[in-house]
Amino acid sequence: MAGSALRSSDEIPGPILVVAAHPDDIEVHCGGTLVQLVAQGKRLSCVVCTSGNRGTDNPDVTMQEIGASREREQRAASDIVGVKDLTFLRHDDGDLAFIVPQLREEIVRIIREVRPRTVITHDPYPGDGGGDSCSIYPDHTTVGLVTFQSAFVCAPGPLFYPGHLRDGLRPHKPESLYLVMSANPSVFVDITETWPTKQAAIRQHKSQGRATPECDREMTRINGENGQRAGVQFAEAFRILLPS
Amino acid sequence: MAGSALRSSDEIPGPILVVAAHPDDIEVHCGGTLVQLVAQGKRLSCVVCTSGNRGTDNPDVTMQEIGASREREQRAASDIVGVKDLTFLRHDDGDLAFIVPQLREEIVRIIREVRPRTVITHDPYPGDGGGDSCSIYPDHTTVGLVTFQSAFVCAPGPLFYPGHLRDGLRPHKPESLYLVMSANPSVFVDITETWPTKQAAIRQHKSQGRATPECDREMTRINGENGQRAGVQFAEAFRILLPS
Amino acid sequence: MAGSALRSSDEIPGPILVVAAHPDDIEVHCGGTLVQLVAQGKRLSCVVCTSGNRGTDNPDVTMQEIGASREREQRAASDIVGVKDLTFLRHDDGDLAFIVPQLREEIVRIIREVRPRTVITHDPYPGDGGGDSCSIYPDHTTVGLVTFQSAFVCAPGPLFYPGHLRDGLRPHKPESLYLVMSANPSVFVDITETWPTKQAAIRQHKSQGRATPECDREMTRINGENGQRAGVQFAEAFRILLPS
Amino acid sequence: MAGSALRSSDEIPGPILVVAAHPDDIEVHCGGTLVQLVAQGKRLSCVVCTSGNRGTDNPDVTMQEIGASREREQRAASDIVGVKDLTFLRHDDGDLAFIVPQLREEIVRIIREVRPRTVITHDPYPGDGGGDSCSIYPDHTTVGLVTFQSAFVCAPGPLFYPGHLRDGLRPHKPESLYLVMSANPSVFVDITETWPTKQAAIRQHKSQGRATPECDREMTRINGENGQRAGVQFAEAFRILLPS
Amino acid sequence: MAGSALRSSDEIPGPILVVAAHPDDIEVHCGGTLVQLVAQGKRLSCVVCTSGNRGTDNPDVTMQEIGASREREQRAASDIVGVKDLTFLRHDDGDLAFIVPQLREEIVRIIREVRPRTVITHDPYPGDGGGDSCSIYPDHTTVGLVTFQSAFVCAPGPLFYPGHLRDGLRPHKPESLYLVMSANPSVFVDITETWPTKQAAIRQHKSQGRATPECDREMTRINGENGQRAGVQFAEAFRILLPS
Amino acid sequence: MAGSALRSSDEIPGPILVVAAHPDDIEVHCGGTLVQLVAQGKRLSCVVCTSGNRGTDNPDVTMQEIGASREREQRAASDIVGVKDLTFLRHDDGDLAFIVPQLREEIVRIIREVRPRTVITHDPYPGDGGGDSCSIYPDHTTVGLVTFQSAFVCAPGPLFYPGHLRDGLRPHKPESLYLVMSANPSVFVDITETWPTKQAAIRQHKSQGRATPECDREMTRINGENGQRAGVQFAEAFRILLPS
Repeated sequence: MAGSALRSSDEIPGPILVVAAHPDDIEVHCGGTLVQLVAQGKRLSCVVCTSGNRGTDNPDVTMQEIGASREREQRAASDIVGVKDLTFLRHDDGDLAFIVPQLREEIVRIIREVRPRTVITHDPYPGDGGGDSCSIYPDHTTVGLVTFQSAFVCAPGPLFYPGHLRDGLRPHKPESLYLVMSANPSVFVDITETWPTKQAAIRQHKSQGRATPECDREMTRINGENGQRAGVQFAEAFRILLPS
Repeated sequence: MAGSALRSSDEIPGPILVVAAHPDDIEVHCGGTLVQLVAQGKRLSCVVCTSGNRGTDNPDVTMQEIGASREREQRAASDIVGVKDLTFLRHDDGDLAFIVPQLREEIVRIIREVRPRTVITHDPYPGDGGGDSCSIYPDHTTVGLVTFQSAFVCAPGPLFYPGHLRDGLRPHKPESLYLVMSANPSVFVDITETWPTKQAAIRQHKSQGRATPECDREMTRINGENGQRAGVQFAEAFRILLPS
Repeated sequence: MAGSALRSSDEIPGPILVVAAHPDDIEVHCGGTLVQLVAQGKRLSCVVCTSGNRGTDNPDVTMQEIGASREREQRAASDIVGVKDLTFLRHDDGDLAFIVPQLREEIVRIIREVRPRTVITHDPYPGDGGGDSCSIYPDHTTVGLVTFQSAFVCAPGPLFYPGHLRDGLRPHKPESLYLVMSANPSVFVDITETWPTKQAAIRQHKSQGRATPECDREMTRINGENGQRAGVQFAEAFRILLPS
Repeated sequence: MAGSALRSSDEIPGPILVVAAHPDDIEVHCGGTLVQLVAQGKRLSCVVCTSGNRGTDNPDVTMQEIGASREREQRAASDIVGVKDLTFLRHDDGDLAFIVPQLREEIVRIIREVRPRTVITHDPYPGDGGGDSCSIYPDHTTVGLVTFQSAFVCAPGPLFYPGHLRDGLRPHKPESLYLVMSANPSVFVDITETWPTKQAAIRQHKSQGRATPECDREMTRINGENGQRAGVQFAEAFRILLPS
Repeated sequence: MAGSALRSSDEIPGPILVVAAHPDDIEVHCGGTLVQLVAQGKRLSCVVCTSGNRGTDNPDVTMQEIGASREREQRAASDIVGVKDLTFLRHDDGDLAFIVPQLREEIVRIIREVRPRTVITHDPYPGDGGGDSCSIYPDHTTVGLVTFQSAFVCAPGPLFYPGHLRDGLRPHKPESLYLVMSANPSVFVDITETWPTKQAAIRQHKSQGRATPECDREMTRINGENGQRAGVQFAEAFRILLPS
Repeated sequence: MAGSALRSSDEIPGPILVVAAHPDDIEVHCGGTLVQLVAQGKRLSCVVCTSGNRGTDNPDVTMQEIGASREREQRAASDIVGVKDLTFLRHDDGDLAFIVPQLREEIVRIIREVRPRTVITHDPYPGDGGGDSCSIYPDHTTVGLVTFQSAFVCAPGPLFYPGHLRDGLRPHKPESLYLVMSANPSVFVDITETWPTKQAAIRQHKSQGRATPECDREMTRINGENGQRAGVQFAEAFRILLPS
């Protein structure tokens, strides 16, 4: 795959919409690329489907407290990345697969509002989880599959959610999906230059243990390995999916 | 209950939103009142949740054909009543109870768009069906209950379907519900004057057998009986439900 | 209401279909009437939606064992009543409200197979449970509501479950529903003559405590009170619901 | 109904479990009775199914913030009433009807833990909402119906949720349900003596507008009217439902 | 894989059942093979689960109109292929994953009616969509998975949908599944001879843009590439799945 | 992959929890390994999600009878393996994908009770079914996916099913998953020594045709092929999945 699969973020057309399952997914998987896209003046919108409101092993916090602190951290991280338009859907952590019809309506609406040329989301078919079992968490694959169908099938069709059209939205079809967490990435974006900013953004997610030396090392390892596959120092990996 | 419960349609504040389960429900249950409201210059919007696409005993038509002809008839009837804003949600006939989450989002949105002071819909608690078993069809009680919750709980709350707000809609709380098909109506509207127009509108629903002398007689009987309870010739009956 | 509401079982047209939630519901609520209908040579079919497979306080039996014994008892009771056509749908006890779409397809099919003129089932609107909290068990009201919609809306419509027609079934519309467990019965059937047979049938449901003197007394009391309301010794009570 | 229906809280056997839909439902509908039950030394547990996390018209708060503040207020109110055991289930406000299977498991478990002789909850059949449309909010009737089935059908049966038994819980059947928000209350509890404490508890729910003179007047009116029906100054109204 | 995987349509035993998600799926993916099977005198039945009733970017047509025109085109295409037995299930386009329980009952019934030795359907595990993102549309994988389970697990078991047996259907187990849209086809059928007929059939789907030179070229390319892999001019590709 | 992937069962830490879809899945896929683990004195618990109550082609047995006989056979097989702690969840065969929310609660609870260091279950991503179509039966992949999420996401989080904690259970996170039925096993366990015991256990499943010479040969072939891949006579294959 190597360096030949290297793709410049210049080639990723804006506006860009990122649809992620949980706080920190965005920074961890594509933060370096996003910093570049913002610097290129492209419009960027981010959606976080659950605020991670069950993602703790602390028995003394509530769902509301953990959700609220995750959102604060996500806002701080987004500020560093340069995201201006950040939306929390606030569904319950771990349960996204149970609410697909509702989630799909929300994502279709956002696609029609934001009108992205590029959508970045989780890979709905990430492989078998052997490389990273996190990639097959039901929340992740659900977001990936719903966003995929929304982008290429529902948002472009005026007969899906026609109520949206009454509110002034128009059908819209993104040009491509960039999928993160994939076992089979097809392109790599060189993020060597924006790596320090990405790291700073990731470290905002303190309550998820992201401000520790262990996490720093882990992130350095993963982005470095992607870089190695691409012939650069640090890289982020994407599988591109095009409409049929 | 008698004449003391007579209420003039002048007292029904517009804008008015009617949410009905099937084609013909609107004309049959409140057509005479609507004609008056239109004449009074009030804004009127009508929603039909299913296009009656299984409501036939003719084995040789398809769901599409029956749905399309029901919509044509509904449009003709609405023209006579003077309805300018008519929306078909096109859910499958008989199945509304299976899609409550989706239906609720649609009705909340329409309430936020139309911003009615008065909502007319099916009674969610119409009695036990002894007077008219049609009143307890699941499609009818489902529409009534979903519209009730939408009007008084969801549409007024900015945290229900916050995506609507991004599209420029604002929360809205109707002042009262007028419920049709109720076993315990609380008010009657004198429709003696608009009775011929109501009849003409009902007769548009030919494929539902509404253009026959039998139907004419049945409608005359029901509206006459309501009139008798109210001390006028013809009346329509409503149960009014107010927010708590 | 009194004796004027007395109706002879001669006036209940066959074929008859009974749709009950649990084993013993049939005998307890309409067994005396059914014995008469069988004696009159009318065709009678009975459906039991769940085999009561969780209805025990014995911690040492399994769902399979309790279900199997309940079915044996139901067969013995049905033999005494004279039921030849008895179908167990075997859904899980207590969960009928969770499977309405599947249940409806099954009941529509059976109505199209049996082609009853009369359907006996639970009252979907039995009152508020004040007289007998059993009447508002979700299993009971679910069976009542699904059977009601099936009988008057779905089974008559060729566009509901059109696959049935490919298998040779034809649409069918029953003439009336006789509802049991109602707080507002409209007719009483004199079962004084068939009371001993009814009692014998009820006693077959041993594992539900129906072969005890307490149950005998309770049954005698209830059927006697219904008799008193109807001016006879023993009676069964029904609320009749007709199509609109 | 009058004074003859007056029932002393002495006759309400403990332990008592209250299952309410939202914060404030407990204090508003049975706070005065609960204060007495606590004073009588009875064990009292309270469950609040949703933390009212969408119940605001303030567009600038999040679901987490509103839920957290509602819980703080509920804790303050419970302290005044004397509730030691307070559980928040934290389901989403307005959506309880969508999660009945999960909710039922939770309530059955709590009944088996608390082992109440008396359960207080919303009336699942409160009338048609004419007296108080709040009584037919889907969240309220859902909690009422699920708690009813849990108390009289599921919690007593070892084959419902047998996993509970592995964890040391045993089946349990409460003796009676006391239903609030009913259009047809069957008993009244004299709360004249505990009325000031009840008022103080209600006033804790500030973010729901419960600390205003208008609310004070409204509460005084409702509890006074109930008192009048019972021949005392202030009373709370219940419909009692017994197992069949 | 090459020519060694070439399989003659002679080896595909009839009767054959094709279960496809949308209009045109059949002709596009296996039309050439079907023409041969018909010519060999084998019995062929086709099922189309949704009539593509949201598959348009024309904002001025209704779901009914688009569905009806797609069915007309499908009938014209089926006529050319020689399909005599064509069934439309008419579920809503894009929503098949939401109705799996209902869909499964329908497909099991059709398998028991048609009693196919071979079932052709979408691959439920088509790969990751990299070759053709259309292959992972939820409608396609849902039809594939439901048909797979229906064919090998449910249709053969008399305890699945026992109501079918009452209507005279008998359990049935197909011998093999031929899956289309697979990233890993195992056999290729030489369709060089029937290629012109296949093209004519595809061109009937005008409203899907199938009567254009671009589509002709695309179809020629795909079938030609499959041919190349099989060592013939034009071929269709299948992944065969056998019961365990 | 070969012998280098050979792993001794000594390295599989106990306690061990096996979660299987149907009776016989346990013995067939990991029986030899389990016999060793028991001999090593490790605590072993087994869960069977459905009792195979539709898994027959005999039209004359009921779901209860077939379920009961399958459980008897499973108990006999478990006795031979040495399983002391065997739990039947008794969900309906073939329908596990329809009840994921309920199933997840049950499996999380069992993980918190048993507190396994190792969980053995079906591979949620077993490949495309080409090697064994049984591996992609929805029951199998559903159990695999739910157990995966339960083990690594839900059971460790105190905010998932907090009611469990009230009953004295504590959060728990297993160290690794061993997945059976995988197309891509990562380790092989040498079961040459325990092979006769495994065979004896499998033969208990008579009603599934497991006591026949054909089945013996088939089992011998599969375990022998796995052995060959691992460089021993007989082996069982697992794909190991670790938390992220």
